[in-house]
Amino acid sequence: MHSPTELQQIIENEIFKLAYPSKPADLYDPIKYIMSLGGKRIRPVVVLMATELFTDEPLKAIDVALAIETFHNFTLVHDDIMDNAPLRRGKQTVHEKWSVNNAILSGDVMMVESNKHLSKVDISVLKPVLDTFNQTAQGVCEGQQLDMEFETRDNVSIPEYIEMIRLKTAVLLGGAMKLGAIVGGADEKNADLLYQFGENLGVAFQLQDDILDVYGDPEKFGKQVGGDIISNKKTFLHLTAKALVQPEELPTLLGDHENTEIKVKAVTQLYDSYQVKEQANVEMEKYLNKAYQALYQIAVSEDRKNLLRQLAKQIMDRES
Amino acid sequence: MHSPTELQQIIENEIFKLAYPSKPADLYDPIKYIMSLGGKRIRPVVVLMATELFTDEPLKAIDVALAIETFHNFTLVHDDIMDNAPLRRGKQTVHEKWSVNNAILSGDVMMVESNKHLSKVDISVLKPVLDTFNQTAQGVCEGQQLDMEFETRDNVSIPEYIEMIRLKTAVLLGGAMKLGAIVGGADEKNADLLYQFGENLGVAFQLQDDILDVYGDPEKFGKQVGGDIISNKKTFLHLTAKALVQPEELPTLLGDHENTEIKVKAVTQLYDSYQVKEQANVEMEKYLNKAYQALYQIAVSEDRKNLLRQLAKQIMDRES
Repeated sequence: MHSPTELQQIIENEIFKLAYPSKPADLYDPIKYIMSLGGKRIRPVVVLMATELFTDEPLKAIDVALAIETFHNFTLVHDDIMDNAPLRRGKQTVHEKWSVNNAILSGDVMMVESNKHLSKVDISVLKPVLDTFNQTAQGVCEGQQLDMEFETRDNVSIPEYIEMIRLKTAVLLGGAMKLGAIVGGADEKNADLLYQFGENLGVAFQLQDDILDVYGDPEKFGKQVGGDIISNKKTFLHLTAKALVQPEELPTLLGDHENTEIKVKAVTQLYDSYQVKEQANVEMEKYLNKAYQALYQIAVSEDRKNLLRQLAKQIMDRES
Repeated sequence: MHSPTELQQIIENEIFKLAYPSKPADLYDPIKYIMSLGGKRIRPVVVLMATELFTDEPLKAIDVALAIETFHNFTLVHDDIMDNAPLRRGKQTVHEKWSVNNAILSGDVMMVESNKHLSKVDISVLKPVLDTFNQTAQGVCEGQQLDMEFETRDNVSIPEYIEMIRLKTAVLLGGAMKLGAIVGGADEKNADLLYQFGENLGVAFQLQDDILDVYGDPEKFGKQVGGDIISNKKTFLHLTAKALVQPEELPTLLGDHENTEIKVKAVTQLYDSYQVKEQANVEMEKYLNKAYQALYQIAVSEDRKNLLRQLAKQIMDRES
């Protein structure tokens, strides 16, 4: 079986080989640009890992892996417009480097490119592959919509937040796993179990992200530690603290402060005093356990599952 | 066989019945809104007409018809953002009524909805249906890109303009016809001929649009006559005149005038003096003839083709 690193290398090579038309350049260059910015390629890697759980030919799913990675990058291009983000992976976002109109339209073509990749799968699995992909794509859009709405809402509950990250982040990881399983020949029950594994792992992954944003090692995190605190983002930590703090502590949590360092320090102290990190860890473990339970129930030998277990461990133990 | 009006009614009913999730409301309400603004539904109508050319069950293609209409409306939502358009069919555009972010994201979900409709076709034609749809969608995006680029380019040639309208407008009409043919059981050759019919009709349709924008009856046109002239849009008429006028007439053609009525009158006179309308008509007839030639070659009885011929005539004889 292939290690995640080997699969990542295969995917990088395939992405490098992808050929788009040369014209109109401003339509296709942004696609090459965003696809080449790298990242961990977690989603296409898990597509192939899911396939390899059921067959010794994981590359049968390479087109689905490319569809998922293209779709993921499409969402990044459009989300960055909506979030008004100047940087992505330390480089200019597409709408900054080209224009908002270019970013809208190149994103649209990326969606078409995803569907082109997808349509190359064996006809015997084409229908369930399309159904799973479309359901996944729709969920991701719903998640982005909720995320935008939460920015201006003052009464977001913790269950609503979990539902938002489930849709925005976890559904795609679950969908990637299920797609890989389908191409690998899994029956519906096992494909759904792998979906559960991926989706629950995805929720745990995002909760870990929330924790790292506050408690990550600044040397290793890659982004500014405390970024969520500075922008008053309604993360699991923020919402948990908001429900626990005394009225006189609310301004510290919700207010802006000219000096961002002081703001980050004050809110982190608040989190510490209410053991918010520990509660986030408990929540994360809950979803991680659900993920492992689903994996356990899948009807393939336990040793075949080891790589997926290792990947989950790597994702959760990560420092950036 | 069904008349275009009967098919349009069937499509209106199906669109009316379409159910989207109720939440998040700001994601799905814009879809219901834009889909209910009406229009002539030409694209889904020709899907069903193309199917009925080859089978007595045109409704086999209803999902493809809905996919095409949803995709078309998706392009309207995103194009209106890019064009900064306040109105669509006399009503507020989606980005005006909601927000640019909502319009981007609802458009994205409409693309997913199109693919969901498409995935419902019989498995025996699913692959060619997907291939044709994806190629069509990609062409439409390329056309929109060129259209945007032309706004700021001073050296657009007439062949470039024809290529732009081919991609932006005609490819979708051709794709709709080909998709209908495939679902109706046409072989590749006949499906391609119907594509040729649709694409060439589409180019003629857009040229007719350019002519109507200047020479349409203000009582019947529905939009402001001369809108293209006021905005200095590089239409076939504009580009033809630009290639013919004397240097001293260029400011009349290219310049702005405080009084739009005077501008429209002056440019129309320029068009008249160089017989620009007549040249546009010659070009339009060229594409119309190509369309009819392709239709003629399709291996079904001539009487079955009458409705498509009538439709083409209606489209070309229209006054709005």
